[in-house]
Amino acid sequence: MSKRKFNVAVVGATGAVGEQIIGLLEKRDFPVEKLKFLSSARSAGTVLRFKGQEITVEEAGPDSFEGIDIALFSAGGDVSKALAPHAVRHGAVVIDNTNAFRMEETAPLVVPEVNEHMISKHQGIIANPNCSTIQMVAALKPLYDRFGISRIIVSTYQAVSGAGAKAIDEMLRQSKDVLEGREVTPDILPVGSLPVKYQIAFNAVPQIDKFQDNGYTLEEMKMVRETKKIFGDDSIQVTATCVRIPVVYGHSESVYVELKNDYELEEIRDLLSNAPGITLVDDPASQSYPLATDAAGKNDVFVGRLRRDLGNPRGLNLWIVSDNLLKGAAWNAVQIAEIIAAQE
Amino acid sequence: MSKRKFNVAVVGATGAVGEQIIGLLEKRDFPVEKLKFLSSARSAGTVLRFKGQEITVEEAGPDSFEGIDIALFSAGGDVSKALAPHAVRHGAVVIDNTNAFRMEETAPLVVPEVNEHMISKHQGIIANPNCSTIQMVAALKPLYDRFGISRIIVSTYQAVSGAGAKAIDEMLRQSKDVLEGREVTPDILPVGSLPVKYQIAFNAVPQIDKFQDNGYTLEEMKMVRETKKIFGDDSIQVTATCVRIPVVYGHSESVYVELKNDYELEEIRDLLSNAPGITLVDDPASQSYPLATDAAGKNDVFVGRLRRDLGNPRGLNLWIVSDNLLKGAAWNAVQIAEIIAAQE
Repeated sequence: MSKRKFNVAVVGATGAVGEQIIGLLEKRDFPVEKLKFLSSARSAGTVLRFKGQEITVEEAGPDSFEGIDIALFSAGGDVSKALAPHAVRHGAVVIDNTNAFRMEETAPLVVPEVNEHMISKHQGIIANPNCSTIQMVAALKPLYDRFGISRIIVSTYQAVSGAGAKAIDEMLRQSKDVLEGREVTPDILPVGSLPVKYQIAFNAVPQIDKFQDNGYTLEEMKMVRETKKIFGDDSIQVTATCVRIPVVYGHSESVYVELKNDYELEEIRDLLSNAPGITLVDDPASQSYPLATDAAGKNDVFVGRLRRDLGNPRGLNLWIVSDNLLKGAAWNAVQIAEIIAAQE
Repeated sequence: MSKRKFNVAVVGATGAVGEQIIGLLEKRDFPVEKLKFLSSARSAGTVLRFKGQEITVEEAGPDSFEGIDIALFSAGGDVSKALAPHAVRHGAVVIDNTNAFRMEETAPLVVPEVNEHMISKHQGIIANPNCSTIQMVAALKPLYDRFGISRIIVSTYQAVSGAGAKAIDEMLRQSKDVLEGREVTPDILPVGSLPVKYQIAFNAVPQIDKFQDNGYTLEEMKMVRETKKIFGDDSIQVTATCVRIPVVYGHSESVYVELKNDYELEEIRDLLSNAPGITLVDDPASQSYPLATDAAGKNDVFVGRLRRDLGNPRGLNLWIVSDNLLKGAAWNAVQIAEIIAAQE
């Protein structure tokens, strides 16, 4: 990494992902010159700590980005759409955690383990993919390079933290209500802005984000579209079922992948053991496999339960787990920032 | 149903499934002449109620079955292996909820909606399939008949009640421990008889039953083998990933099925709407889809989230939910008993 230091803005500093970004900038000793914490008017005035220093959160506006080199956005798609262009106008590189620019042609959609080379092609905005996509493509990259991938069939087991701090509170409150015999009154999940709410405590809810015309949810379509864009390969067939379950941190995914060529399981094991950002946890004899509770708080993507499809010689099952707020959001964004910093 | 009445024995009467069987025999007004509740020595002496009458649970032994017409077993595979032959020797028809005889050629493996005709072919023992298999094949049967099925890729979201009453207690206790900030000490799950235990509260554990040499768990291999046997079709390719999640009652399944012929989604909808034992819950506009909390306590299999694979014109995604103790165990067994009773 160069000796240069950077003026960094964190937009959505008081949110679940913002908090993780700030923690990572500190822990990774990111070369920060000046740090600016931005938020909505509601949270402005909050005082946050960074390396022992107190920083007051300011309200984000079009002129918040003067002198900023890198702006990390995670305050929702509307905020990104409204303010990211202003950050770019002031000369900042925007790393955006929302869905606002992911499918825009001018915005690279980056998972460093997969397509780091796209970072330098940005025109001001780099998009951070959806949490459920990031961990899957990071784990599949070594298989893609070696064997090719013809199709992916994925079912997710997603943590409530993906829907924000309020959804965590709701799930824990509902769990307490059920345990103490009280009626549950769902308030936020599955989708805050939609009228129908369902209990998430002790349940599995097959809806994350709004339904699209084709019957898939937006979360499912993100997995389909983003996977193709990140690999730069429209020929990969992807179908997804996205489900919210009562877990706080860590998305788990049951992934079935059909490779383009024959494979040996030992070779897959070797590839994953040596892949950057991947930890292989796969030993049936000792009941070792990835678990959300183990992945929580860690940056890596954990992969296990490797099994050959007994019918299709090119079919493979994997169980992929990662902390949705870290590799699924904050860590992937900070990784990109580190790469930008190293390139300057 | 004929006017004849039957002497019925329930083996494992004090267990989670036994309790449901007794409840169904009462609720369905099964033509009972004499009812016998059997259990291990540990639970013998327990007094249970049936239609206002008190019945004392007796210890099950080789001679417990004299005069019994129908014996419903759900006390574990070892008990079935030891005692079912004795029940048959005494002239009873055994309906066995365990894994003891499912793959034996002489034992029909029956889900009435799929292969009711096999019931009359029994040689004393009829096997009740595994919970996760039953709800899947019941939902897929109309599709199989109309289009044919070439392969099934299933990921499950299974309730802790499938591991028995103690696993429910453990999950609820762990949830309380987490909510109140206490350390969690796993005791039973994922597999009582294996050394390594994991927290199930606020987690997703991709192990149900023991690992086999091929890397699949026994639960996963049950889904593979039983599906072929129930449909009487070895050509169906099945691959499964079975996962325990913190739900009390109701297994959910994300099922991807590849049909042998082209289909229209409307036709699938019509077939499932008219299928016996199936309730279609599938309206994205009103956020309607099956949920474990809704299926709990009901006999039907609930199906929704019907979506075409966007790449493969013969691929279809479904979300299948049912109460694992009812259609997944007790209700399927009592259904078989009712058919036997009606045939006499």
